[in-house]
Amino acid sequence: MTERVDEPKIVVIGGGTGLSVLLKGLKKLTSQLTAVVTVTDDGGSSGRLRSELGVLPPGDIRSCLVALAETETLMDKVFQHRFWQGESIKGHNLGNLLLVAMTEITGDFVSAIKEVSKVLKVRGQVIPVTLEPVNLTALMADGIMVYGETSIRNYPDKIYRLGLTPETCLPVPAALEAIREADAVIIGPGSLYTSIVPNLLVEGVVSAIAESKAPVIFISNIMTEQGETDNFTAEDHLRNLLYYVDQEVIDYVIVNTGYIDEIRLNRYKQEKAIPVRPSSAEIRAMGYNVIEEDLVSNDDVAWHDSDKLARVIFKIIDR
Amino acid sequence: MTERVDEPKIVVIGGGTGLSVLLKGLKKLTSQLTAVVTVTDDGGSSGRLRSELGVLPPGDIRSCLVALAETETLMDKVFQHRFWQGESIKGHNLGNLLLVAMTEITGDFVSAIKEVSKVLKVRGQVIPVTLEPVNLTALMADGIMVYGETSIRNYPDKIYRLGLTPETCLPVPAALEAIREADAVIIGPGSLYTSIVPNLLVEGVVSAIAESKAPVIFISNIMTEQGETDNFTAEDHLRNLLYYVDQEVIDYVIVNTGYIDEIRLNRYKQEKAIPVRPSSAEIRAMGYNVIEEDLVSNDDVAWHDSDKLARVIFKIIDR
Repeated sequence: MTERVDEPKIVVIGGGTGLSVLLKGLKKLTSQLTAVVTVTDDGGSSGRLRSELGVLPPGDIRSCLVALAETETLMDKVFQHRFWQGESIKGHNLGNLLLVAMTEITGDFVSAIKEVSKVLKVRGQVIPVTLEPVNLTALMADGIMVYGETSIRNYPDKIYRLGLTPETCLPVPAALEAIREADAVIIGPGSLYTSIVPNLLVEGVVSAIAESKAPVIFISNIMTEQGETDNFTAEDHLRNLLYYVDQEVIDYVIVNTGYIDEIRLNRYKQEKAIPVRPSSAEIRAMGYNVIEEDLVSNDDVAWHDSDKLARVIFKIIDR
Repeated sequence: MTERVDEPKIVVIGGGTGLSVLLKGLKKLTSQLTAVVTVTDDGGSSGRLRSELGVLPPGDIRSCLVALAETETLMDKVFQHRFWQGESIKGHNLGNLLLVAMTEITGDFVSAIKEVSKVLKVRGQVIPVTLEPVNLTALMADGIMVYGETSIRNYPDKIYRLGLTPETCLPVPAALEAIREADAVIIGPGSLYTSIVPNLLVEGVVSAIAESKAPVIFISNIMTEQGETDNFTAEDHLRNLLYYVDQEVIDYVIVNTGYIDEIRLNRYKQEKAIPVRPSSAEIRAMGYNVIEEDLVSNDDVAWHDSDKLARVIFKIIDR
């Protein structure tokens, strides 16, 4: 892929692995990239640092920074390195600890991310959607309110509606600015309830997307996720997203029509995950532009192929 | 200070703060610097990482790397940053954790130090004296054997003789090579028993120094250290060093004749530390070249002034 003379400004909204995969592909085509990233994670190393130190969870930010690192250097490896032993440090990623240290030194999380971005020679920018210590809450289908991302994931019933505690939560202004100035706004891929929707609950984010004249693209996941989107089709993903974003805001929906082989399907059986049915006709009937593509990567996991996904997005931008 | 056309090769042997102070001065005058550093520390963050992960203690190495870092950048600050809160990470230095992560990634401590040296743009090289997990042992004046650096420091009686467990311990070949090729070999400043002597107990180190045709310079400390060198004069430092190195190996002894003001003296009273008497006449009577200089820094602490010390050493080399 060659670099374009005028690089489009692209904002991607989400968190976790899905967003990283997308960023790896997009960074080859534009340096005008902004990742707006959720900060509601409360599990793993991020969760421990959060509860012990009161910092924002660094894990999702870390993954995005590595995805956008200009070259794959030893520094990237170090940044992603997880300690597997040692009573005190077991489970922590060095990158998480580096972000915490940099926050303590510079005095704020946004500056810390900027400084780490320099070290990793990051292409584009990574912005936490908010700097407030918010937690995810969910009203479950059985009427029970569940607090915290990990608890919501582990709760046996379906999610009915998501919210934040505290309910009103201020955005990072640079995130809104990037959305307003974007040539394309991309929502997903990634965990619908724990990576995507939390961003949309932060004040001003949805209206900034609505005000944007750029195409707004929703990328459906390839596989369902246990405890979040069991048995969901692409239409289900979209319909549930539309509880948080007005229907007319979304312009394009990208669905996967690629085949996932038996070996990978079997592996996902343990996680009770199945392929997301594209349900293109239903989504078209809702009035959306549906882009059907084989987007499956050749890796062991049934994730999006970074480059295939980036190419599809650029086709939309170039229309 | 201007850079010389032919930069002399200097090897410094020790550990801890003393060595760092010396390195900060020397790096301005030569890039041909090698720090040979002790690895017997078993306290603090280093001690915890050592006991939990079985790694070599990274603390002394970390201090030397920062001392030799080419410029004072944010990365140096991050590398030295210590976490003051957080149950799991409290007390750890990010630099220590980075060295551990890099060791796990590269597979060995020496490569890890080299890689971190690149990140910090280190001038010169830092080499652990050994890669074996050795511990310091001490036969105390009362006949009791004490194991481990921290326990030795805390034991109320005087140290009679130091040793290592296991007794024979192989050196890192690059350390011996650097000593053999040096234009000057410098022992100290630093904790006599816990930073300097441990290096001399590693096989081959003393004989490499003895074989060297370069001047061998011993730098006496400015202040005594509680539990190690209480009430020691410079002569006492030297005489105790001579249990581990043959008398004829040392060529020069540098002593401080500078004045330490009342304010600093009072601060050291808590640590039961007093100025080391230069005892130049006694050392001269032993047959050594004694260099007397005011070497006290203007800092809050009664440490060597890096630049003054470097200048004195270069005067010796230029003779």
